[in-house]
Amino acid sequence: MQFNKNLENIKTYEAGKPIELVVRDFGIDPKDIVKLASNENPFGCSAKVQESVAKIISKMALYPDDSMFKLKASLAKRFGLESNNVIIGSGSDQVIEFLIHAKASSSSKILMNKITFAMYEIYAKHIGAEVIRTNSVHHDLEQFYTLYLEHKPEIIFICTPNNPTGDALDVADLKAFLDKIDKQTLVVIDGAYMEYTAHKDEAKKVDPKELIESYENLIYLGTFSKAYGLGGMRVGYGLSRANIIQELYKLRPPFNITTLSLEAATVALEDEDFVQKSIVANFDEMKRYEEFAKEKKIDIIESYTNFITLMFQNSHNSSEISDALLRQGMIVRNLSSYDMNAIRVTIGTKEQNDRFFELFSKLI
Amino acid sequence: MQFNKNLENIKTYEAGKPIELVVRDFGIDPKDIVKLASNENPFGCSAKVQESVAKIISKMALYPDDSMFKLKASLAKRFGLESNNVIIGSGSDQVIEFLIHAKASSSSKILMNKITFAMYEIYAKHIGAEVIRTNSVHHDLEQFYTLYLEHKPEIIFICTPNNPTGDALDVADLKAFLDKIDKQTLVVIDGAYMEYTAHKDEAKKVDPKELIESYENLIYLGTFSKAYGLGGMRVGYGLSRANIIQELYKLRPPFNITTLSLEAATVALEDEDFVQKSIVANFDEMKRYEEFAKEKKIDIIESYTNFITLMFQNSHNSSEISDALLRQGMIVRNLSSYDMNAIRVTIGTKEQNDRFFELFSKLI
Repeated sequence: MQFNKNLENIKTYEAGKPIELVVRDFGIDPKDIVKLASNENPFGCSAKVQESVAKIISKMALYPDDSMFKLKASLAKRFGLESNNVIIGSGSDQVIEFLIHAKASSSSKILMNKITFAMYEIYAKHIGAEVIRTNSVHHDLEQFYTLYLEHKPEIIFICTPNNPTGDALDVADLKAFLDKIDKQTLVVIDGAYMEYTAHKDEAKKVDPKELIESYENLIYLGTFSKAYGLGGMRVGYGLSRANIIQELYKLRPPFNITTLSLEAATVALEDEDFVQKSIVANFDEMKRYEEFAKEKKIDIIESYTNFITLMFQNSHNSSEISDALLRQGMIVRNLSSYDMNAIRVTIGTKEQNDRFFELFSKLI
Repeated sequence: MQFNKNLENIKTYEAGKPIELVVRDFGIDPKDIVKLASNENPFGCSAKVQESVAKIISKMALYPDDSMFKLKASLAKRFGLESNNVIIGSGSDQVIEFLIHAKASSSSKILMNKITFAMYEIYAKHIGAEVIRTNSVHHDLEQFYTLYLEHKPEIIFICTPNNPTGDALDVADLKAFLDKIDKQTLVVIDGAYMEYTAHKDEAKKVDPKELIESYENLIYLGTFSKAYGLGGMRVGYGLSRANIIQELYKLRPPFNITTLSLEAATVALEDEDFVQKSIVANFDEMKRYEEFAKEKKIDIIESYTNFITLMFQNSHNSSEISDALLRQGMIVRNLSSYDMNAIRVTIGTKEQNDRFFELFSKLI
């Protein structure tokens, strides 16, 4: 059977090794496995969220309220926006899918950073659009602008803080860039880890309301998967002007998040205390990584997220190191597929990080 | 901002009124509202599933095992297939999305029944494909064949039993039809309600393995939303030859179902007793609808599902009736948007059905 030509260029996405596989392949006891590979919140999720979800567990047979009335109203209120500025996705991934399908086609170009979130390219390839990339690890907005002028992309992806590198843009620089972009080009500001950045550096804190009011061609993406500790529940969101949200809504399938996910996200917004405690603990533990790296003379990228990138130059090979860690039950993200001799490590709990330092020290 | 032209023809999907809205609009106590509108399992879901999900509620922060190793193996085993014959979607809706995006384009035609599941057309319009429809309420396979010869569609959707009408095809007729279709046309057999049909009539029971072995151009769709009682958890599946599954996999986003959904579906497959009890109760209660309709001289379509369609000819107006029911807290599906003067009623529990008969009797 023949399929669309676009599909020839798509490689099947390979997810990181699940704990179950590491158990099978290396015969390691599940309790001895530490996964610092997917930037999940090591403190789990809010106890209030767990209680609320447990209470409605008998409702798994019922479709969710597809208007998502309460969740959208709560999100809108949090950002000083209206419900018609909000669209909910099955992870912010799905909002990326909506906007690429709404705005781009096989004759379009989509501009993004050399190293950034892999799903931008994957969704672009689904529709056969051409991906244009900068050649710098960090977001170089001058280079973005040069490529914008040259290629006239339909969509520009700015990931701040950037995944998988952890660095973030100054908002002043971002605004100066946005001022120069024409109103027909959709600019996506992906702030999946922005709660962490906002805590660390006011100058890098993006206020979605301010940007949406200033720029009619902008959409901001957020998620419940990171600071809110709901990676497994698949809830993300897009914030933009009502006319843009309305177009994306045309591509949203009904019931795109589960009944339990809707409850979890709604209640998660009511427990800001859990989020703030997670963030404070994250940066306390991150200091230990920074000190460790300094001591061991390993380069790092300063991180505004819940992960840190360790770069090896020519001293070590990231594939060998991540493989050796894996054999001892420590799962980290090897960045060789991003053309970087580096590993990305999620900042875990104190105990998880202790274990990482212990195992990693023996390898370097 | 300009968006793709396809979007101009897409109407935003309007979901049925959630219970919360009926509470607000009509001031009805939530406990007095009966929803027989979405073909959810009125018995909820298996107690075993609820226990298993409750046990992992602290894992909402963790992404699911994206290989879905266990769920795919269990589904494959159930149908006598291999794991590489299975793809999991966020509802079978998402598998429909994958296959339309994989096989069709804006220059394609997609053939379906006059009255059938709305998502086929919605996804077809997302990519700007042309929808070809028969002109008969029931699947008329001769007409399907004539339109197939005339239009050479990329995809043919056969929904058996059909939603929202409830009738089902004889498998012998289906096979005779499939024999005449060329191998480049993808035929989709949507069996979302097949567990009910299989119980009622052996001649209409589709065996996915048999069809997949006989026809290289066929995909079968199933779901956990109906008989398995997991409508709110969004898990469906496609079964097909490995080469077709492999192509669809290219369009599957990672982590497309939640951690709790993966657990729920996996355990649901282990509690066949719950499913069979639900189905037996369904047909016991359906008899009451059939007798009621006979007594009241209302036409029905014989149903092989967990819902029944009541047709009003010129005696009543389905919009007026469903509106009057709604004002009393009884939510049913008005089929006027399908160009039918009819309502679709989910077979509920004995108490829910009693309430329907009571309210409905006063309106006719």
